[in-house]
Amino acid sequence: MARYAYVNGRYVPHDEGTVHIEDRGYQFADGVYEVIPIIDDRMVDAAPHLDRLDRSLSEMNIAAPLSRKVLELVMRELIERNGVSEGLIYMQVTRGVAPRDHKFPKGVRPSIVMTTKKVDFLSQKKLSDGVKVITIPDIRWERCDIKTISLLPNCMAKTQAFEAGAYEAWQVDGDGNVTEGASSNAWIVTADGKLLTRPATHDILRGVTRQSLLRIAAEEGLSFEERPFSVEEAKTAREAFVSSATSFVTPVVQIDDTVIGNGGPGILSGRLQGWYLDYCAGLNTKER
Amino acid sequence: MARYAYVNGRYVPHDEGTVHIEDRGYQFADGVYEVIPIIDDRMVDAAPHLDRLDRSLSEMNIAAPLSRKVLELVMRELIERNGVSEGLIYMQVTRGVAPRDHKFPKGVRPSIVMTTKKVDFLSQKKLSDGVKVITIPDIRWERCDIKTISLLPNCMAKTQAFEAGAYEAWQVDGDGNVTEGASSNAWIVTADGKLLTRPATHDILRGVTRQSLLRIAAEEGLSFEERPFSVEEAKTAREAFVSSATSFVTPVVQIDDTVIGNGGPGILSGRLQGWYLDYCAGLNTKER
Repeated sequence: MARYAYVNGRYVPHDEGTVHIEDRGYQFADGVYEVIPIIDDRMVDAAPHLDRLDRSLSEMNIAAPLSRKVLELVMRELIERNGVSEGLIYMQVTRGVAPRDHKFPKGVRPSIVMTTKKVDFLSQKKLSDGVKVITIPDIRWERCDIKTISLLPNCMAKTQAFEAGAYEAWQVDGDGNVTEGASSNAWIVTADGKLLTRPATHDILRGVTRQSLLRIAAEEGLSFEERPFSVEEAKTAREAFVSSATSFVTPVVQIDDTVIGNGGPGILSGRLQGWYLDYCAGLNTKER
Repeated sequence: MARYAYVNGRYVPHDEGTVHIEDRGYQFADGVYEVIPIIDDRMVDAAPHLDRLDRSLSEMNIAAPLSRKVLELVMRELIERNGVSEGLIYMQVTRGVAPRDHKFPKGVRPSIVMTTKKVDFLSQKKLSDGVKVITIPDIRWERCDIKTISLLPNCMAKTQAFEAGAYEAWQVDGDGNVTEGASSNAWIVTADGKLLTRPATHDILRGVTRQSLLRIAAEEGLSFEERPFSVEEAKTAREAFVSSATSFVTPVVQIDDTVIGNGGPGILSGRLQGWYLDYCAGLNTKER
């Protein structure tokens, strides 16, 4: 089965999808993106992902390339063409093609690219076994709340984690507090059972999965708080986990050289993962 | 006359130059670049620009796409094909095309793109009249010494300057000191006639033009120092200017609302500009 990409109005074979060399996404990282998971033939949290795309475009003063309605039609068409029942849809919008000049050009049509990928998310060992994370200094810019394609430091962090045999790198601010992972939000469960994650200011991305988990935590009556936590606090936590659109709730069993809890996924992490996967599968609260 | 671009081994009409949608330069800003000015049919400081490209590639752990010898052949061929006697050659190297995943892929061939542009540099009014700059917080990441295509904050800064009727935005660190412009290094001349520019640490780009100017300053016996200077110091300076490969020595006559000196280009700025343009034109020290 051929795999298609959607590139500026056309469905093209994935391998033939191209953009111009002066697309500002290529020369300046002048663009934004979203990744939406697909589980059981349905997109998870599509609306908040597209809301965040709108916010990113607005923060960057890039025009929407398509109306919400058309965007959703294209997304569904691409998913169907590519036969993706479990996996993800990726989309990026850049400011468009213009002669190279730092300042934002006027009257340029934004570029939009969409691709899909089949991923057997639910059978991934990391969900059941947990992962190791390392901690590194957060060297990123001061607007990590905007989901831009300016991801080089994130790539460097993820590579550093991989080379250390870890899944993720928790970035640490100047005060010794964890900001977030290279591609996920960071969470811990304190000794007294409280769920903690950093507030979504300009320092971190307001993860869509993060927001869904906070809602589920509230619905389930869990004790939780949004406040910064230190590396030390994380290493002595009862549990830890990461969240993102494609890592769902992935337990953290080791931070640097420190084993968390008993070295296996935590109880609360496991329950949140279950609730969240039910939510992804479209089961409502009552059915959980 | 057709305008060509060099894209991954082929000379193609500029308008038809494309890269794959999964080029890591497009999805992650995972690449580096250089801009080399051309004056009187010759590239200015080509060697230090290519040395810096090598350093950027090495810092990012990206393989060189071509040997230095071949790279120089391609540069000369493209400049000749496009008939550029005054202008610039732009080149960017990215990690290459790979399925989207933050961590650096192995065994991927880097992508290389080169374009040229004709610019009548020497008749630009900014060289004779000077420009206005604004000051803004420096929100960039902590490795501004690597010349990456992760330029979104620089584009935002330049746009902000443009919208304020200025040419450049001087970015200011947490200590109130100027780091550099969005696409140029920052300089002042103190009340007692000393030339000042910030040391090239991880906070700023080690400009090739900056280095040539420091060498010329030394040759001419000027008093100069590399140390951070504050916005306040800049606003009360006798002179100010910016340097870059395509702005050469451009006098600064106003910083925010403060007129510098008598409101016209400074004497020392003018002399440095003259010496530097002589150097660009290939005149040696004796002929200056």
